[in-house]
Formats: sequence, structure tokens, C-alpha cells
Amino acid sequence: MHLGVCYYPEHWPEDRWPEDARLMRETGLTRVRIGEFAWSRIEPEPGVFDWGWLDRALDVLHGAGLGVIMGTPTATPPKWLSDRMPDMFALTRDGRPRGFGSRRHYCFSHQGYREEAARITRAVAERYGEHPGVAAWQTDNEYGCHDTVQSFSASARDAFRVWLERRYKSVQALNEAWGNVFWSMEYRSFGEIELPNLTVTEANPAHWLAFRRFSSGQVVSFNRAQVEILREHSPGRDITHNAMGFYTGYDHHDLAADLDVLGWDSYPLGFLEMFRFSEGEKRRYARQGHPDIAAFHHDLYRGCARGGRWSVLEQQPGPVNWARYNPAPLPGMVKLWTLEAFAHGAELVSYFRWRQFPKAQEQMHAGLLRPDGEPAPALSEAREASAELARLGDAGKAPKHAALIFSYDSEWMTQIQPQGEGRSALWAAFSCYSALRRLGLNVDIVAPGVSLDGYMLVIVPCLPIVTDALMDELAASDAQIVIGPRTGTRDDDFAIPDSLNHSALQELIGGKIVRSESLSDRLVMEGDGWETSGWLDHYEGSAKPEFVARSGEITGYHHGRVRLCCAWPQGRFLEALIQHAAVDAGFGSEPLPEGIRRRTRGTAVFEFDYNAGEVRLV
Amino acid sequence: MHLGVCYYPEHWPEDRWPEDARLMRETGLTRVRIGEFAWSRIEPEPGVFDWGWLDRALDVLHGAGLGVIMGTPTATPPKWLSDRMPDMFALTRDGRPRGFGSRRHYCFSHQGYREEAARITRAVAERYGEHPGVAAWQTDNEYGCHDTVQSFSASARDAFRVWLERRYKSVQALNEAWGNVFWSMEYRSFGEIELPNLTVTEANPAHWLAFRRFSSGQVVSFNRAQVEILREHSPGRDITHNAMGFYTGYDHHDLAADLDVLGWDSYPLGFLEMFRFSEGEKRRYARQGHPDIAAFHHDLYRGCARGGRWSVLEQQPGPVNWARYNPAPLPGMVKLWTLEAFAHGAELVSYFRWRQFPKAQEQMHAGLLRPDGEPAPALSEAREASAELARLGDAGKAPKHAALIFSYDSEWMTQIQPQGEGRSALWAAFSCYSALRRLGLNVDIVAPGVSLDGYMLVIVPCLPIVTDALMDELAASDAQIVIGPRTGTRDDDFAIPDSLNHSALQELIGGKIVRSESLSDRLVMEGDGWETSGWLDHYEGSAKPEFVARSGEITGYHHGRVRLCCAWPQGRFLEALIQHAAVDAGFGSEPLPEGIRRRTRGTAVFEFDYNAGEVRLV
Amino acid sequence: MHLGVCYYPEHWPEDRWPEDARLMRETGLTRVRIGEFAWSRIEPEPGVFDWGWLDRALDVLHGAGLGVIMGTPTATPPKWLSDRMPDMFALTRDGRPRGFGSRRHYCFSHQGYREEAARITRAVAERYGEHPGVAAWQTDNEYGCHDTVQSFSASARDAFRVWLERRYKSVQALNEAWGNVFWSMEYRSFGEIELPNLTVTEANPAHWLAFRRFSSGQVVSFNRAQVEILREHSPGRDITHNAMGFYTGYDHHDLAADLDVLGWDSYPLGFLEMFRFSEGEKRRYARQGHPDIAAFHHDLYRGCARGGRWSVLEQQPGPVNWARYNPAPLPGMVKLWTLEAFAHGAELVSYFRWRQFPKAQEQMHAGLLRPDGEPAPALSEAREASAELARLGDAGKAPKHAALIFSYDSEWMTQIQPQGEGRSALWAAFSCYSALRRLGLNVDIVAPGVSLDGYMLVIVPCLPIVTDALMDELAASDAQIVIGPRTGTRDDDFAIPDSLNHSALQELIGGKIVRSESLSDRLVMEGDGWETSGWLDHYEGSAKPEFVARSGEITGYHHGRVRLCCAWPQGRFLEALIQHAAVDAGFGSEPLPEGIRRRTRGTAVFEFDYNAGEVRLV
Repeated sequence: MHLGVCYYPEHWPEDRWPEDARLMRETGLTRVRIGEFAWSRIEPEPGVFDWGWLDRALDVLHGAGLGVIMGTPTATPPKWLSDRMPDMFALTRDGRPRGFGSRRHYCFSHQGYREEAARITRAVAERYGEHPGVAAWQTDNEYGCHDTVQSFSASARDAFRVWLERRYKSVQALNEAWGNVFWSMEYRSFGEIELPNLTVTEANPAHWLAFRRFSSGQVVSFNRAQVEILREHSPGRDITHNAMGFYTGYDHHDLAADLDVLGWDSYPLGFLEMFRFSEGEKRRYARQGHPDIAAFHHDLYRGCARGGRWSVLEQQPGPVNWARYNPAPLPGMVKLWTLEAFAHGAELVSYFRWRQFPKAQEQMHAGLLRPDGEPAPALSEAREASAELARLGDAGKAPKHAALIFSYDSEWMTQIQPQGEGRSALWAAFSCYSALRRLGLNVDIVAPGVSLDGYMLVIVPCLPIVTDALMDELAASDAQIVIGPRTGTRDDDFAIPDSLNHSALQELIGGKIVRSESLSDRLVMEGDGWETSGWLDHYEGSAKPEFVARSGEITGYHHGRVRLCCAWPQGRFLEALIQHAAVDAGFGSEPLPEGIRRRTRGTAVFEFDYNAGEVRLV
Repeated sequence: MHLGVCYYPEHWPEDRWPEDARLMRETGLTRVRIGEFAWSRIEPEPGVFDWGWLDRALDVLHGAGLGVIMGTPTATPPKWLSDRMPDMFALTRDGRPRGFGSRRHYCFSHQGYREEAARITRAVAERYGEHPGVAAWQTDNEYGCHDTVQSFSASARDAFRVWLERRYKSVQALNEAWGNVFWSMEYRSFGEIELPNLTVTEANPAHWLAFRRFSSGQVVSFNRAQVEILREHSPGRDITHNAMGFYTGYDHHDLAADLDVLGWDSYPLGFLEMFRFSEGEKRRYARQGHPDIAAFHHDLYRGCARGGRWSVLEQQPGPVNWARYNPAPLPGMVKLWTLEAFAHGAELVSYFRWRQFPKAQEQMHAGLLRPDGEPAPALSEAREASAELARLGDAGKAPKHAALIFSYDSEWMTQIQPQGEGRSALWAAFSCYSALRRLGLNVDIVAPGVSLDGYMLVIVPCLPIVTDALMDELAASDAQIVIGPRTGTRDDDFAIPDSLNHSALQELIGGKIVRSESLSDRLVMEGDGWETSGWLDHYEGSAKPEFVARSGEITGYHHGRVRLCCAWPQGRFLEALIQHAAVDAGFGSEPLPEGIRRRTRGTAVFEFDYNAGEVRLV
Repeated sequence: MHLGVCYYPEHWPEDRWPEDARLMRETGLTRVRIGEFAWSRIEPEPGVFDWGWLDRALDVLHGAGLGVIMGTPTATPPKWLSDRMPDMFALTRDGRPRGFGSRRHYCFSHQGYREEAARITRAVAERYGEHPGVAAWQTDNEYGCHDTVQSFSASARDAFRVWLERRYKSVQALNEAWGNVFWSMEYRSFGEIELPNLTVTEANPAHWLAFRRFSSGQVVSFNRAQVEILREHSPGRDITHNAMGFYTGYDHHDLAADLDVLGWDSYPLGFLEMFRFSEGEKRRYARQGHPDIAAFHHDLYRGCARGGRWSVLEQQPGPVNWARYNPAPLPGMVKLWTLEAFAHGAELVSYFRWRQFPKAQEQMHAGLLRPDGEPAPALSEAREASAELARLGDAGKAPKHAALIFSYDSEWMTQIQPQGEGRSALWAAFSCYSALRRLGLNVDIVAPGVSLDGYMLVIVPCLPIVTDALMDELAASDAQIVIGPRTGTRDDDFAIPDSLNHSALQELIGGKIVRSESLSDRLVMEGDGWETSGWLDHYEGSAKPEFVARSGEITGYHHGRVRLCCAWPQGRFLEALIQHAAVDAGFGSEPLPEGIRRRTRGTAVFEFDYNAGEVRLV
């Protein structure tokens, strides 16, 4: 595994570059990511390029023995460009343009901007495609950051209509699939269809799902255009992109299909503070991050990546600037996170960023160096991690334990139609993942339809649309299986199937879910040593009740090697249910101690202690 | 009392219709509401009508012995229509158009849409006005749903100016009535007056009150136009409309004056979750609804309805899709709700809806049948209710116990100027209603000025504008009277009277309120066995203190047969105050057990047990 | 000290004026503020003036012996004026115009409105500038009320560009100062720079700081234009303006530099409810106001005012209408507030308002008279205060104890970049002020650079930008000094200095802050008898740890006469830290009892008991 760092030569005097490069190498870093925000320096005036500084920066870094990951600068078009195309901005759901002054100020559907993005990509690729220092390319930066995938612009509307026509062929087919008769929402032509925002009350969920798919597809095709240019001008280099945490704005399986390596940006402390963790977790893990945050994404993105090649393109090295509160990691955490990425199979961990820039939006975001150029605490941890990795050498393959099925459209659907506030497929998956991890199991998070060979446990947390391929895999598998709420309850256009559930699923569970209630967390259903809330699926069929609440509700059924999770997958009920399945799968049911996590790879067993920020190798 | 159901033949294959109709009749249903969302099927292209399917549906239903309530489809104009009149949309308070893609996408003040609404109403009325199957008409659907009464469009502004000129005659009179001198807000002509939104800070409360009255009037005149067409083409049929719960966007007394029967849509579980009930009530009654929700509206709308004729046009049969959480009713609740409507005098209870449609916005909203056409739990309860009703036969007239005075402008005024956050006339009325109900009393909720003959108890919870007619009734009545905060403190244009309170009110209470404080619920005033908060009126006059808090505040006075409620009407203080008045009125002071409610009608005493979902007939 | 009242003759019949004036004088009032909202009466039609009524009002008041404070009516331009200049409105941050219908509907940068404001000011000044009854002038009313300083209009954008060009001379200098290279935000000309709103994610903090400074400057120059006209036409009269509470939208030091007297509007009960006090404080002090609210502003605005001349231009006399809840002051509070203003050195306390107007927006806002013209409770308290003041005579000068350094840009910077939610320089200052006050000390709140001669204690709560002048004063002073978080960590353009902290500060504290963490209040750091949270500065240098938390964090250092506050200045830790410094400065460390406050002036020691609303003179 490589260690690397994100570096912005344009922030610093040229005479500092050699010292920076030397110190990177001395720290044990071998990769450096540059260029992704430098458009205004590369092309300061329309059509006028200034390559000199970047040529020299590349030479310095390459000369010091660093492999460069070169970014395309399309996340930050300069002001002169948006002034030429004032309609290139995305529009908010409220209909307001999202203008210049920060970054990501473009609509993915704007043809003019697509041409400009291709033009600058081609210019950079032509210049550096064959440069020996260029080890890889990164396209753009954090697609979707600041909620930028969905745009409610005229460009998006026009492209959406084309997309719909391709998908449905006839508007009658669309009307029928969406049930537009419901409120006289029937269209006479694709040209009548608007974007689903600004409606009086909620739009048709099928309308939203189509728009989410379309929007995701726009990201994928935007990215693909860059990939094609890069492949043409820089053959043999890996192409990557940096995904984000707890982010589902586009389908990462689709995006990754065009990439060689899927990267992601790991900020465990910021994510803990900003996402839905309990107050207790936010207090307990404030300076470590919840112990499943990084691992969940490692395992998720490994499953998304073509060939399982993935990396951490940005690793938090200290306090960040963007969370509600921004504490510093405990001593040892940066090293722990680095080694945990290795345990999960990363090719690269790249710290963000080399040196804290004292100006602009991220002036309070730490780096490996302080703004004054002195070492920040993370520098020595990076050095230690590098030494440790050298000692560990090449770790073996991770044995298969549990597979967890996740699809991006499942999250879109539970966002569009939660039915009960906050009932999210992503967070159902995270809860299941945590429960598996607390049992010390390796987990692969995979797309529906991926081969389930070799897994002893398969969890389907919440998958409204099940594919035939998934059902075939589940039928063929001899794993213990857990099926969560809403699974198999929708067709591909968000309609409830005539048979209520997907027919192969009915076979698997020996019956069907005939009615669903969403419940507030006020209504607790409890049994011996467990309690749950949030949802209740009513089942009819031959499976046997396994979890019966004292108040009478049946929250879990058992049918051969299949378990049905009829309450929302959360809390002690979920843990108990997964323990039952794990025992039947031949695993132990004893959870690891609080704050301890394990990952097995080859003959090595890694244990990570999030209580004190220590990593032990067993 | 009839039982009925809402049915959408356009959702289902034509060959299923006879079976549906047969099963409706078998269940004991005799009414069926259709057509209210079917404009795009009735007129698929501008001016091109397709009557065939609706002719046949009507024939099938009529042939099976069902009386049809035909809806005018004006709540869901088709896309082609809004494309022809892009300015027909209402504008939000923020100034954004509320576009196509769901329903109710029209501004009540748009003349072009008014013409279109009249045109389609006339077309349907001409076609089916004399059809023997048509038992009644429903205009539009849920006026005001999704906050659609107020529109901040140019159409609304222009119509508002005309309305103001009619009301005030001269702009000088308006300036004087509103006190526009206050911040140099004086107008020189009606054409200078804008809508009250988008001001720097709050607009003049008199401006808002005028706009609320105007907006309500627009609904009433929109509805009246349809009523006139229907009366012309379908003489002898009842005309109704379905009002909503806890909804005060327009004056239901005014609307009902043009209708034969006032209907309403009863969703006790959704209302419990979405409105201001305590966490404890939301937990306790999650699957029953708070025991006063349905009854409050029965008694409110009976009081609004011309001749007291009212019905439940939509009755919740299972989980809905639109609340924060959507549990299923406990077994027995659908039957209980049905019989309770009977106990309060409904002509009809119509379940929403026959069969759950598996697509579009309400795909998670239950029906009497599941999406697969199998019976949902409510079907058998409807059947049982039908049998029970047959057994009960014709119940007698309900004896008069208590009258509760409510006006829509009182709620508008407390919304416009709560003075203390959340102090609402509607919820003050609901609290008083609950307190009366817990004593087992029959309650009539009536408009100010309605005859108070025969009542032994009259409550005026919060009525800023009192009419002379009301004051005459109160003076003439020998009932025990309770007067709540803010009552009689404003003239018809939202100004404080020169005498501070309405002069006849001063006579009634033997003095006047000279100062009001709004208090947070942090400041609790408590006495023996009671406590309250939220408001404190300071009284000067000859009434005697009846409730004195330990901290010295006087929260209640007694003056002959009149009691003054000087704190906000809520909590145990309100209960105690109303108990005092009830005892003086000759009623008992012993509350019914928790969750039990009673309604007396003729010789029958109905008791409803909301704890277990059972209904008992004593 | 004068007592006065705000009066609106235009609200009342002319024949009532003499009686009002007589009663004012009888109550002990000698000043009356009029005219500030009367534009529509002064100039009912464009260019047509009606001076008669105002001439007569002035004569009546003057004739009764009252000195008139005449307001310029520019806070309330009439409708005809905005109809002539529809682009005169400020735009919200969301880009919506803030239209007519309340007040303050103008953009400070609109040249057309500036001309109109000058025109009406000149007209009023020409008419009354030499009138013997006019004692003083008030410009406009509550600049910034309803969040009106920042406008996102085209006028503001154009003026901002000019302002930037003046400040930075070249756009390259601006790019460099702001670090615009960061996200390719580099501009090629000033004409490319937009306002910082409507960006995709947060704009550059340097961009926001510049806009806040610009916006503040627009208020100052708007005001200065009126001052110049008034000085020309009404020489020798004081010019004042009424500032608000907890309001930092513009730099009051800059505004006050153009005024003779700085006034402010004191509403202790409303401020308690609407600002960030704890639930416990809101309950305990609901009818008194927190005991430091009024005093903090007295001491702050005295420090802002040229020559230390200040007044209370509006004093709460009863319930107001604009807080979430609006209780009445306890008996005695109006008198207490009046005398406390005297103790802090006010020239005038003017009650708002004489008589409650029964109409329009503030109809629920109390006055000294009720709407019916009868005395409200505050009238007799004003009379008592007047008698008391006569008895007290001229109080001496207040001895210097503690100085607290505050700058408006510090609050702007912590709003722009709190780094940890809610970490505000203003509220840090308030907390420090409270801690000093609980020790019974006199506090002066002064701008950086003001002479610190004579102070024994100097607190710098949170001052990101320190000036050389301040550092010189601190170096020269022999006071005990406390330096709070973020102090000296930014240059004048929001960049972190190369040396991390201002170099003179490093000398003062014997080292530097090398890293900062923002922490949620969940993470409590506690020691013996203290606890704190919210922030942690990491210090390197020769100062000695003074406060070490049990969990190991060092929250306070001691270095000679300087103390470093490394946690957020709040709670019991702050009290302990300030007590240490106070003892070293020769003061006692024993806090006053709960709710008691003290102010020493000459030989008088005033004690104010906020527990019971009593004032004692020791």
C-alpha cells in the first residue's frame, strides 16, 4: 500500500517545493495528488495557458521520487468561464441559481460546460499524459459535494425529457408505469414533463426516482467523458475519483465501472458529528470517530470498485473546518485509520493535505504541516504508519464471512418515500454492518446480483427493488439469510407489484408481507433482552415467529435458513436477530468488547481499539 | 346513516368493476364517491371529451344499487391546461409559483382558471345531472389542502384590491381603520396596496386579516360558481364538499352556507401525529387517535352546516401515507369511528378508499381492499358497522348541554398575532372541548350569534371579535358562561376598541381586561390541584377572584353566572374552571375515566373506549 | 439626567396634545422624541408638504416646557416613493426584494434613496433647525433593525466593487490577500466580483468580512449624510441615533464618531426571551430581564460614544409585542432600569412610548398610558424615578476597575467562521462581562487601542484581529490581563499570520497557540470546582499551566500578569479564571449574591436587586 498526500504547489512559493518534496519522501510518502483546483492558474485567461509553474512542480515532485496523481480541475471553473455562460449554474430545488464564489458551481447537464470540461481535461491530458511522473489521474473532485448532483435548471429539464424518452419509448408507457392517472397527472408528450420540484405537494415518487436516476446518470456520463479523454492521452495510468462519506447522490457502482480505482475521502470525526449518531456516540467517539465509519466505507467502496481496487484519497489528519464542532483526533488515531485502511485492502492512503493554507474557506482545516510550515501532530503518525506497513509487508486475502446487499436506488427510494420519518436504507445498512462488525466478522457490501459464493451470512437490510439476479443468488446460496423491511416491495418504477412482494422473494420467505406500518420511536416493542421500534411488517405465510414482543407484535420470523426482520433493523433487536443468524452460520455470538473492531486478512488478525486509539496486531 | 366508499374506476380494469360494486353492496355500502380526480380521463385533450368509460362506470355502480356522489374534477387540472395558462398557479408566500406535478395547482383568484373550472363543471353536470345513479355532488376536493388558499400571485393582488375597495369604499377609510399612519404606511389609492407578504418585518395585522378574509372569500365564490351550475343542471341532488381536520384556511360557515351537506375527511391517526398533541398522547393513542379528534370535528362541522346536515366523506381505514409515522388502527377502531360518527349525527360515513392503488403519491395509503384486491382488515369492520347500524335504527335527537363559540376569524387573528408563541384560538377551543367531553357532555360548536337557547353551559374560549348578536345571546341566556382570553378585545379591523373591551362584554363581566401578558410555559402558576401558564389577563372590575395562584396571580374570576378565564385555557386549571361552571349548570363534576368518551342521542348513551378500541352502547 | 418619552402626535386627536404634554411634565419628563415615522404625514404627496400639524405639535410640546428630539423620518419612506423607485428595496440573502408594508424597506446602497433621504432630512432640518423647542435630532430609527444592514441588491454589488477597489487598489492584491487561488476563485477585475451570497457552499471568509465591513460602512455614510445636513441647518443641537441590543450589524464605534450622543433602546424582557440565555435564566428573570442585559449595553455604548455621551432613547415600560412571549415587568423594574441607567452615566432615559396605539404592528406594545388614555403601571414608576433622581443630584465619576476589549469585526468573524457552532465573540464578551459584574466591579467596554491607563484588570475575550495600538497598550499597562481564544490569530484580511499569532501577542503570552479545537458542549473538561467546554487552544511556550482538567487538557495558563484562557470563556471555569486575575489585581474574589449587581459612581454605591425588582442605594 502506498501512502500519499494532497499538495497544492500553487499555494506556496516555488522555492519551498523541493523542501516539501524531500520531507514527503522522508515521511514515507510515495504519492502526491495535485492540480484539481488549479484551473485559474492553468488558464488564467480564456484560451491562455500557463503551464510553466505546473511543469516545474511536476518535475520537482517526480524528481523527488513521488508518483503524481494529477487532477482534472473541473470542480472549480474560473470566474471568466461562468461569466461567459451565466446559465451553467445548477439551480436549487427552490429554483435559485447556485453562483460563483466557492466551488462546484456547474450543472452536470449544461452542454456548454460539458464542452469546457472536456476542453480543459484534454489540455491537461495532452500536456501531462505521457509525463513519467504521472502515476494516475483523478477526475474532478468529490462529485456531488455540497449537494450538487441534482440541478433544477432548464438544461437538466431538457436532458431529463430526453432521458425519459429513451427509457420509456412512449409517454403512454410512462403514464402507465408511474400511475399518472392518479391525480390527472397524465402527459401527452415527453415535452410536457417538468422536473419534480416546485410542486404543490409531493410529486409522484416514480417521477422523483426517475429524476434521481437521471441525475446520477448525468454524473456518470460527465465523468466518462473525462475518462475517455484521459485514456486516449495517458494510456496505462490508473484513473480514479474521490467519493465521499455517507453520500448517495449518484450510483457509485455505475461511476466506478468507468474507473480503475475508486477512491474515497475519509473524515471520521467530521462524519461522526454531522451524521445520525446518538449523542452518546458523539461524546464517546468525538476524537476517534465511531469505530464503523471508516470501515463501512472501505467495505462499501471496495464492493463498488471494478476489480475491488480502492483507496483513501483524502485522510483526515487533524481538525477539519466543516463540521458543527471540529475536535482533533486523539494521538494515534491517524496511524490507526491508516492501518485500518490497509487491513481492509486499500491501495493507497493519501492525507489531506500537506500544509494548512492560512487563507480562504479551509484555513482551519489541518494538514500534516501547520500553516507556518512546522510539523503538525499527524506528520509523525504518517511516518510511523509507513514504517509499520513496511514491517507488515504484503497481507493476504480476506476470508469471506458476511455479505451485505446495498443498492443506491434503495436509499433514493427511502429518501423519496420514507413512509416513517428517518427510515433510510443506507442507515439500515449501516446498522446491520455495525451489528456484524461487533461480532468480529469480515463484511463485504455488495450490489444486488453479485455472486454470493462463499458467504456464510447474507443480509439484505432494506432493498425495495430486488433483481432477479439477486433472487437467483439467494436461492442458490446456502448462507444464512436475513431479509429486512420493504425488501422486494416495489417494481422498477416504484409501483407495488400485483403480488405485493417480488414472487421469488415470496418463495424464499414462505409467504408475503401484506401490510406495513411505520412507527415512531415512541412505540417500543420489546421482548427478552431486546427492544425495537420504527416499523412493523405484517407477514402471512409459513415462516415461524421467532421474535414476539410482549405487546404481541411479531417482529421476526424464521423460515429455514431465512430470517425475516419485520421491525426496523436497529437496536438490540437487530443485534439479537443477527446473532441468531450468525450462530446458525457457524460463527460465535459473543460480541467484541465495546469500541474494539477486528478485520481478518490472510493469516493476520487486526484489532482496532477505538477506546484508546490503539491498534494491535494479533 | 349511509355507509359509502371512495372509488376510482379509472385505476382498475373495466372487467373488475362489477365485482367491486357487488362486494361494496355485500359489505353494506350504499354510496360511492367517484370522479373527483379524473379530468385527464374525461378530457384527455383540450375540448375532446371521453365520456364512455365514466358512463359505463356509473351504470355499473348504479346497476348494483349504489348511489353515486359525483365529484367535479377541478382539484386536478391536466397539464395541457396549465401549459395554456402558465400564470394560473398560486404563488407561495416567498413568491414562487406552485407548479404542476401533484394537485391543487391553481390560484383561486385566476379568472382564466375560474372559467375553465366552470366549463368542466358544466360539462360533467350536463352529462350526469339527471342520471338516476347520481345521488349527490361533491365540489372539487379538500379546498385548501397543502396550504393552497392563500396565493400571492398578481391575480390575487388585483382581486384583493377590488375586494378592499368594496369593503372600505375610500382608501382614507382603510388607512384610518388599519392605523396606517403608524409607520407611514398610508396609501393614496387602492392600487398602491400590495399583498402582505415579502415585507421587511411583519405587515400590519389588519392587512393580514383583510387578506385572510379575502382569501377565504375567494374559496367561497369559487365554490359557489360550481354550486350554481350543479343546481341548474342537477336539481334536487345534494351538493357537498369535503373539509379537512384542524384546518381553518377558509371560513367553513361561509362555504357551508352554499352547500346542502358539509362533509369532512376523518384521519384520526394522521391528525394525532401531525398536530399539537403531547408526546404522551401521541404514544398512548398512536393507533386509536386522541379520543376528541373525530368528535371535535363532527361537532364543529355540524355547527357549520346549513340545517346541521353533515357527513364523513373520507374515513381512515388503515395506515395512511402522509403523516410523519403511519401506524395501523387497532382492531375495532374503524368500526368505533363509524359508530361515533353516527352518534354525533352523520348522514354518511364514506371510507377512503375502496382499494389501495399501487402507484403514485398515495400508494402507501390503505383502502378497504389491499392493492392485490384482497380484503384489508377494515373491510370486515365496515361490514360489522353496517350490521350494527341496521340494528340501532333511527337514533333520536341529541339533548343540548354545552355550546362552544368558535369563529374562523378568531383563529386567523391568533395566527396573525399570537402575541405568545402558539396561543391559538382553535387549540383553545379544542382544549375547552376536551374538558367538556371528559365530563360526558354533549357539545355543540357554534358560530357567534347562533341562538343559545337551551344550553346550560356556554364557553367562549378565545374570540377577539365579538358580535353584537353574540353579546345579545349571552345576555339573554341563563347558561353558565365562561369567557376566555382576548375575547372582545378587537374591533372588526383588528384595532383595540377605545374602551379596551367590547362594551357589552364589560357589562357581562362587570369590568374590563386592562392589560395582557403572554407567558412561556416555563412560568407556571399553580393553586390547589391546578396549574396553568401561557397568558395572564389583568382584570379590573367587580367580579370576584376564584382562582388565585400561590404566586399571587389571579387566573380566574367569578361574576354571577359568568366566569372569566384569565390564564390560557389549558391544563388542569381549565378543567377545574369548567368543572366549577358545569356544577353550577347542574351537571356532575366527575370526569369520565381516561380514554372514555360519551355521546347522548335520544334515549341512547354511546360510550367509546379509546383505550382498547371498543365501543359500548349503554 | 433627563427623563423623556417617545410621542406620536400624529396618532392622536390634536385636542389631546396639550393634556398629554401637561401630564408628561407632571410626571417629571423633560424630553420628548417625535417625528421619526411621520414621512407620509409630512409629505403626503411627492413634493407636497404638510407642516401645519407638526408646527402645532412642536409648539404645544415646547410650550409645555419639553425639549424635543426630532427624528428624521427616513426609516419609513412612503409608498409613493418606493413605487417611483422599485429597485430601492434591499434584497434578502436569498435574493428576494424586501418590499413595502412595514418599515426599513430600503437598501443603504441605493443612490436614489440616498438622495431622497437627504431631501427629506434637509426639508425637516430647514423647517425646524432653528426652532427653540428642538433640543436634539435623531437620525432615522434603529439602523439594522429587522436585519436590514446587509442587502444583496445590484446597488449593493456595484457599490461593493467600488469599495473593494478603494481598499485593495489592484485585483491582484485582493486575490493575494484573500487567497483566491484556493478554489480558482481568482478575479481578473473588480467587475468580476459578486456578493458573497448564493454560492454553492460557503464563500471565502475574507469575502464575507469585506462585505460586512462594506455594509457597515454604508450605514455610517448614510448616517453621515444626514448628520452633515443637520449640522448645517441646526447648529448647536446634539445629534443622536438609537442603537439596539445584542446587535452588531454595523460598527457602532464608526457610527458614533459622527454623533454627539449615542442612544440605545433597552428592552430587557424581550432581549432575555429572544437571545441566548438558558432556560433557567429565562424562567428566573422573565419579568426582570437578566441582570447584566441593560448594564452590558450601557457600558458598551458608553465606550462607543464620542466623549462617552450616551442615553437610553427607548426604555421598555411594560409588555412588548415582538418577543416570543411578552410578560410584564415586575412592579419596580421600570424604576430600577431607570436608576441603573443613571448609575452607569446616561444623559437621558426616554420611555417608549407615551400611549399605546390601538392599531397596526405594535398595538400590543405597552406605553406609559394605556390605549384608552388611562395610566399604565409604568407612569407612576417614571414619576418616582424622577423624584429619586432629583434627590440624588449629580453623581460623581465612576472609578476604573476593569476594561473589556471588544471590536465589531471580532463578532463578524466569529459569525462568518464560528469553527464551532455558536462560538461568538459577542457572547464571549457578555460572559466575561457577567463574570466581572458578579464580582461587583465597574466595567468599561472599549475598542482595541483605547488607552488602558488606570485599569487594574483587562480582559480580551475573543479578538481575532488585534491592532498594534492595542498591543502597545497591553504592553504598557500594569493591569492583570486575560487573553481569550482566537485572539490575534488573523490578519486584517482574515488570513492566519505566518507566525500563527500576532508577534506582539506572542511576546505577551510567552509563546503561541499552535492548534485550536472546537468542541461541542458534550465534551466537558473539569477541574476542582470548575468545568468548561466548547474550545481548546493548544499552547506552546513558557507560560505555566494554571487550569488542568482531570482528563489532562490545559485550559488556562499563567505568565506573569497575563492569563491565557484556552477553553471557551464560559461557565464556572471562566468565573474561576477571572477571580484569579481579580485577586491578583487587588480586588476581592467573593461574588455578589445571585441576582444582585453593583455600580460605583463617585461616592455612591448603587446596588440593584434583580431578584425582587428593588434598588438600594448604599
